[in-house]
Amino acid sequence: MKARFGAARLLGALLAALVGLVLAFPAVGRADAVTDSVAAVEPTCRDVADRIFALREQGGAEHQSSALLRETLAGLGFAVTGDLSVPADLVPGGVSQTAFRAEMAGNAPGPTVAIMLEYDALANGHSCGHNLIAGSGLVAAAALARLMPGLPGRLVVMGTPDEERGSAGGGKVALLEGGHFDGADVVLITHPADRWSLDQRLLAMKRATFTFHGKASHAAAAPEKGVNALNAVQLTFHCADMLRQHLPQDVRLHGIVTKGGDKVNVVPELAQAEFAVRALDTATMDDAYARLVDCAKAGALGTGASLEFVAPRVALTSPVVVAPLIEATRRGLLAAGVEAGQLKDWTEFVSSDLGRVGNAYPTVNVWFKIAPGGTALHSDAMREAAGSPEGWQAARKAATAVALTAYEMFTHPQEVEAVKQAFTAARGKATGGAPAP
Amino acid sequence: MKARFGAARLLGALLAALVGLVLAFPAVGRADAVTDSVAAVEPTCRDVADRIFALREQGGAEHQSSALLRETLAGLGFAVTGDLSVPADLVPGGVSQTAFRAEMAGNAPGPTVAIMLEYDALANGHSCGHNLIAGSGLVAAAALARLMPGLPGRLVVMGTPDEERGSAGGGKVALLEGGHFDGADVVLITHPADRWSLDQRLLAMKRATFTFHGKASHAAAAPEKGVNALNAVQLTFHCADMLRQHLPQDVRLHGIVTKGGDKVNVVPELAQAEFAVRALDTATMDDAYARLVDCAKAGALGTGASLEFVAPRVALTSPVVVAPLIEATRRGLLAAGVEAGQLKDWTEFVSSDLGRVGNAYPTVNVWFKIAPGGTALHSDAMREAAGSPEGWQAARKAATAVALTAYEMFTHPQEVEAVKQAFTAARGKATGGAPAP
Amino acid sequence: MKARFGAARLLGALLAALVGLVLAFPAVGRADAVTDSVAAVEPTCRDVADRIFALREQGGAEHQSSALLRETLAGLGFAVTGDLSVPADLVPGGVSQTAFRAEMAGNAPGPTVAIMLEYDALANGHSCGHNLIAGSGLVAAAALARLMPGLPGRLVVMGTPDEERGSAGGGKVALLEGGHFDGADVVLITHPADRWSLDQRLLAMKRATFTFHGKASHAAAAPEKGVNALNAVQLTFHCADMLRQHLPQDVRLHGIVTKGGDKVNVVPELAQAEFAVRALDTATMDDAYARLVDCAKAGALGTGASLEFVAPRVALTSPVVVAPLIEATRRGLLAAGVEAGQLKDWTEFVSSDLGRVGNAYPTVNVWFKIAPGGTALHSDAMREAAGSPEGWQAARKAATAVALTAYEMFTHPQEVEAVKQAFTAARGKATGGAPAP
Amino acid sequence: MKARFGAARLLGALLAALVGLVLAFPAVGRADAVTDSVAAVEPTCRDVADRIFALREQGGAEHQSSALLRETLAGLGFAVTGDLSVPADLVPGGVSQTAFRAEMAGNAPGPTVAIMLEYDALANGHSCGHNLIAGSGLVAAAALARLMPGLPGRLVVMGTPDEERGSAGGGKVALLEGGHFDGADVVLITHPADRWSLDQRLLAMKRATFTFHGKASHAAAAPEKGVNALNAVQLTFHCADMLRQHLPQDVRLHGIVTKGGDKVNVVPELAQAEFAVRALDTATMDDAYARLVDCAKAGALGTGASLEFVAPRVALTSPVVVAPLIEATRRGLLAAGVEAGQLKDWTEFVSSDLGRVGNAYPTVNVWFKIAPGGTALHSDAMREAAGSPEGWQAARKAATAVALTAYEMFTHPQEVEAVKQAFTAARGKATGGAPAP
Repeated sequence: MKARFGAARLLGALLAALVGLVLAFPAVGRADAVTDSVAAVEPTCRDVADRIFALREQGGAEHQSSALLRETLAGLGFAVTGDLSVPADLVPGGVSQTAFRAEMAGNAPGPTVAIMLEYDALANGHSCGHNLIAGSGLVAAAALARLMPGLPGRLVVMGTPDEERGSAGGGKVALLEGGHFDGADVVLITHPADRWSLDQRLLAMKRATFTFHGKASHAAAAPEKGVNALNAVQLTFHCADMLRQHLPQDVRLHGIVTKGGDKVNVVPELAQAEFAVRALDTATMDDAYARLVDCAKAGALGTGASLEFVAPRVALTSPVVVAPLIEATRRGLLAAGVEAGQLKDWTEFVSSDLGRVGNAYPTVNVWFKIAPGGTALHSDAMREAAGSPEGWQAARKAATAVALTAYEMFTHPQEVEAVKQAFTAARGKATGGAPAP
Repeated sequence: MKARFGAARLLGALLAALVGLVLAFPAVGRADAVTDSVAAVEPTCRDVADRIFALREQGGAEHQSSALLRETLAGLGFAVTGDLSVPADLVPGGVSQTAFRAEMAGNAPGPTVAIMLEYDALANGHSCGHNLIAGSGLVAAAALARLMPGLPGRLVVMGTPDEERGSAGGGKVALLEGGHFDGADVVLITHPADRWSLDQRLLAMKRATFTFHGKASHAAAAPEKGVNALNAVQLTFHCADMLRQHLPQDVRLHGIVTKGGDKVNVVPELAQAEFAVRALDTATMDDAYARLVDCAKAGALGTGASLEFVAPRVALTSPVVVAPLIEATRRGLLAAGVEAGQLKDWTEFVSSDLGRVGNAYPTVNVWFKIAPGGTALHSDAMREAAGSPEGWQAARKAATAVALTAYEMFTHPQEVEAVKQAFTAARGKATGGAPAP
Repeated sequence: MKARFGAARLLGALLAALVGLVLAFPAVGRADAVTDSVAAVEPTCRDVADRIFALREQGGAEHQSSALLRETLAGLGFAVTGDLSVPADLVPGGVSQTAFRAEMAGNAPGPTVAIMLEYDALANGHSCGHNLIAGSGLVAAAALARLMPGLPGRLVVMGTPDEERGSAGGGKVALLEGGHFDGADVVLITHPADRWSLDQRLLAMKRATFTFHGKASHAAAAPEKGVNALNAVQLTFHCADMLRQHLPQDVRLHGIVTKGGDKVNVVPELAQAEFAVRALDTATMDDAYARLVDCAKAGALGTGASLEFVAPRVALTSPVVVAPLIEATRRGLLAAGVEAGQLKDWTEFVSSDLGRVGNAYPTVNVWFKIAPGGTALHSDAMREAAGSPEGWQAARKAATAVALTAYEMFTHPQEVEAVKQAFTAARGKATGGAPAP
Repeated sequence: MKARFGAARLLGALLAALVGLVLAFPAVGRADAVTDSVAAVEPTCRDVADRIFALREQGGAEHQSSALLRETLAGLGFAVTGDLSVPADLVPGGVSQTAFRAEMAGNAPGPTVAIMLEYDALANGHSCGHNLIAGSGLVAAAALARLMPGLPGRLVVMGTPDEERGSAGGGKVALLEGGHFDGADVVLITHPADRWSLDQRLLAMKRATFTFHGKASHAAAAPEKGVNALNAVQLTFHCADMLRQHLPQDVRLHGIVTKGGDKVNVVPELAQAEFAVRALDTATMDDAYARLVDCAKAGALGTGASLEFVAPRVALTSPVVVAPLIEATRRGLLAAGVEAGQLKDWTEFVSSDLGRVGNAYPTVNVWFKIAPGGTALHSDAMREAAGSPEGWQAARKAATAVALTAYEMFTHPQEVEAVKQAFTAARGKATGGAPAP
């Protein structure tokens, strides 16, 4: 009995492999069309990426980079809209001048696939390689644009500025709230890194600024008449530092003291701390955040200082992991020439406004390797890699994978349906069904 | 003008000195009568003190010492009452078996003067010298007993057991609440020390036991499922340690951890700390106490542990400082042969249930020197001094001062009135008129 | 090119599946022999497991359980040695009375496979299910004993007592240091749980007891003369609590206060804390441990207390993960009827002296499911499961997997060689080649 | 015996009063001469004080105030020296442009008495009333200048700028180290306040700046690669906060956080705290300071951050209390019309570079009442009082006391000798004979 059962299991595995082979065959023809198209558009797009690299415009000020992309997309036949309307409390004036939305319809109704471009730099230039996000996204968009006349559906390119300033909400959060992602079925993006990875984990994050008000008094002549606001900060930190032991190990809870007294001979009247709380799971982050706020309340209660605190308007969620979409992208990457063994886990977790998109729509991000393992994002070495020929070659592979994935979605509506169902199921499990923030 | 004014001031000082001399004259005759009487009773009383020293009975168990004193006082003609009724929550059974009250009336109505005797020992014997408190108080009582037939008023001797266990309330607090000090106009007591002092300062004190309840969990496998009660204790201590900077410098705030977890591999489910808060002023102590309780509440709030806390039934107040009574006793001490220059401040502040008596009635304590400066109360060296001939000689001088002071009260009712008015005024100032606890 | 490449990859996957099938065929005959043998020995072994469950003897006192196992193994033809010689500083007297070693040679020289049995209980009985470790190990040993006449190699059964007291070193550490595992090529063991798992991760662990000596003084009268040992404990904890943020997230660092002062009115002269430091990697644990010791030194330096600390004699390492051995065991489990999908990760990491064995020899542990997911080890529910018929059925499957794995090792010496090479390589990588502790 | 002894004591007190009267008689004539002289010079001096009040020049920039005083003193016949040479590390350039030294010799060799003037303001004007220090000192100096032709000795007026910046050393410390107090026998100064007081207690003080260097790392992606400099600050504060319990109660230990990290998402690489340590006794302050430095070292040791710390070049000592000089000044105050009962203790202790002068020379400071009790130094209310007619009247009384005290020194060289002996004795007792810093 046992032996036969064992044999049956092996046969089952064999069958599964054969099925995989069959499913993969259509990809052959698809890959040819897409990769040919990629080859055709690449030179133009690379030039755009290079110019963005040289512009090195920081978040909220990436006007020329945005204009360059808009013009290029218009030239490719996209209908481009700039000056997108967004909530005025997130972007002063209520208009995002450096965001844009470009759209191209196919030959029939079908899935809507959005590709996101980032193009903001840091103080030390494009050390996060957003020029390559823009460049690779543009390659995919341009390649697909050549195929859209023969495809159903709609291709959208979202220009999402101001990612680096994170939870400030100026970038993707503003566009989400402005309704500019409405109708998207699948969202795709890339990001350069020190490895190839389809690991989608991002840390949900919420920030907190705790301001404590005490009472000044001469620290030597009359300390008993003072209320020490710095003591409240100290107690809050001690509480937070102890709390960490009793939070899931993926939680990140970290802070700084931004105000710790004015003069050494005066009891600190005002003291302030900033914290960020993160976790791979939004609910876990929210729980930890609530406990941190209790620490600050304890800091006030224990010292007699008063706490001034308003939870921030914007928080970042973690994205929903959509297995079939990742699997489709993985096939695209393999087809683009990336070895399966090259795909690595991502363990140095960070946060991004991408998490908010990925919490609202089925989204996948392709980490592509432009620098040796261990090269940190935001380092000068990463900036050099983002401007190198090797960097571009990797970006091109990532672009190919994005284009192949989009192509698969356009041509297999049932797969889009599977992706959306998987998204809904996974999201419901993670949030208990709460609506996207 | 200036010159004449200066001369006038000097003449004033001269007059004041002369008035002091005149007031002191009656003391001459008084001192003779009292000191003769002291000399007569001393041998018997010294024997009693020596036997109490040898008995070394601890608080609540000083049965033989109490019996010995009761018998001696009865033999001197006092009406003695034992088994005094007290609140049952302070002394189980509601009867203090080792306390007593002895009374002797004079030849006419007049002031009531109470002399307190203590006689409980510590684990290392009479290292706080209570045998000499009993002995010197007995000398004063016996000496006065010989004079009472010629004096108005009433002499009361209070046997006050169980002082060392402090705020537990078994001694003077129970007797106060039992009404056994009712009617006293002035209360007198002595205490051996490393110096002569009429410094009446005692620290008001209240204790607190904070018990925190968390939730156990395996400290390695599932720390995130635990609530760490020890963390609440840590936070409470940190808060209290910071608080100290912002309390008047005479406040004493000190604690220990009595429970800090069971097993290193289990998140502490139960943790406990004990604190005492003290200050020279009862209201200051109460304020500091309230802030300490806030620290414990902050410890609970910040960690998620729950706080179990009930303020103790008994707290100790600081005594009221009654200047004219101290002055009268100072005259007695000088008359007993103590040099004015020998009288020192008391700076190593402690607490005693004496503080409760001194908060309810005009009270004075005479610190008498039996050991070299720097000899600590409760030390073995102090115990040796409490059993030495030199110790007794000092106790005799203190007894003489007590007897002289009492004599002055019996013979000068107007001075009793001044003492009571000063007490009422000083007490009202300190407490805002709150009734004695 | 791309398309052909993709097709080639798929064909490769197909080939790999076929190879797996071929490799699996011998298992069919093997499985028959072993499972028949298991069926034959099971009733006797179950009875032994039941009796150990009822005996519920705790660590170091499992005399009857040990005797029962020794007698049973002797009856099966094993050469049994008890009273094993071990280091006297780990087991007083230098003899482990409840450990044993049983051995049976095959028909020719060949691999040595050791199966470990545990049989100590906890205060609440066999809530860690060691009766089933003994029982399943016994089933495997007995089943193999019937086959050894036809097999090369040597079967060893190690009775390893006193696991629960962990780092005390009384169990496997003492046997390792006593040389009783010498010659083992592969070591196998099982453990009941709330899931099936071949996750081998265990936390390396070292304990620390920090004793601080200060100076007593009256906490109100002379706090400035005291040195507060409790303050040193507080500072050590605060330091450790902050340290946690800057350690790899798998590190576990947890402690309790075992002594925090004696009397509230005395500055604590003696205070003590116990900590444990753990990590999935021994080197990481050692690094964290060194930093914790720095915290204690800082506690002493900052407060003026003196630190008494000696690193413990025994620490637990993490085991080496030996991929081919795990793979072989996985095949055994599947053949025993466990579904691949049932195999889960282990995420609630704990420590065990098993980590020391697994750091010295290629070792695998089979977690077998006897209780619903979420049932904690050491809980009453787990104890009930360990005594239930369902618990035994799972133990029997685990036993079958162990027997199949051992059988494969005996019959495929080249696989043993591969296991040993993988062990050496993985161990060298983890430790930098340091010898086993 | 006792009675006669008591009478003898009283007669002794009577005699002491008479002796005091006799000693006071010479003061009568002296007072007349001095007060007449004060009346003559007052209007001019008041004008100077008013102009300084209006100039409100801050420390190091009090050029016009200084020039005004120098001119006035030169006009009175003093030999005035400006641009005093001082250590270049205390005052850049090595020349104190706003300090000065004015000197006038008497008719024969004799004691040297120095009167110090302060004239620096705060940001909110003369809220510390230094205009009145200058004004009252000038009154005393001018009044004495009229009498010097008939007196032996030497009168010195020291212009001591830049007091408010405290331990920076720009004022009296620089002048001391520059040798400008050389030869002084007695130093006198005044200070406005909310009370009359001859309490000379000032807190010795030393400052500390602790800079901790850690290692930056992304606080979410790689916290384990960072070394948290803020943690070192937290630990230092916690240590200091606990330390306070075990320091004499007059010690003041207080600090602020001047740098607590840059960005919330980066592990703080740099953190900094400033502390001040004070005590009524220099040696006690030094001890406490050493323990605070140990706290900072513990902060570094426990966290792995490195500590950058250099003890400051300048510390402030507490002054020596010279009883006979205080007594002489007290007589002067009484003669100037201040009632003995008006003289209060000073309990809200502060520090001043006056403490350094008072540690090097017999010095007395006269606190004079210009504002209602409870008005804090440096408050706007105090500034108003410093510019009011009532403020000036009090300053005039203080000036009279200073002039009388100086007059007494000039005319009673043996009293100067007694003052110097008392100074030497008291200083030796306090410092163990250490030379002045």
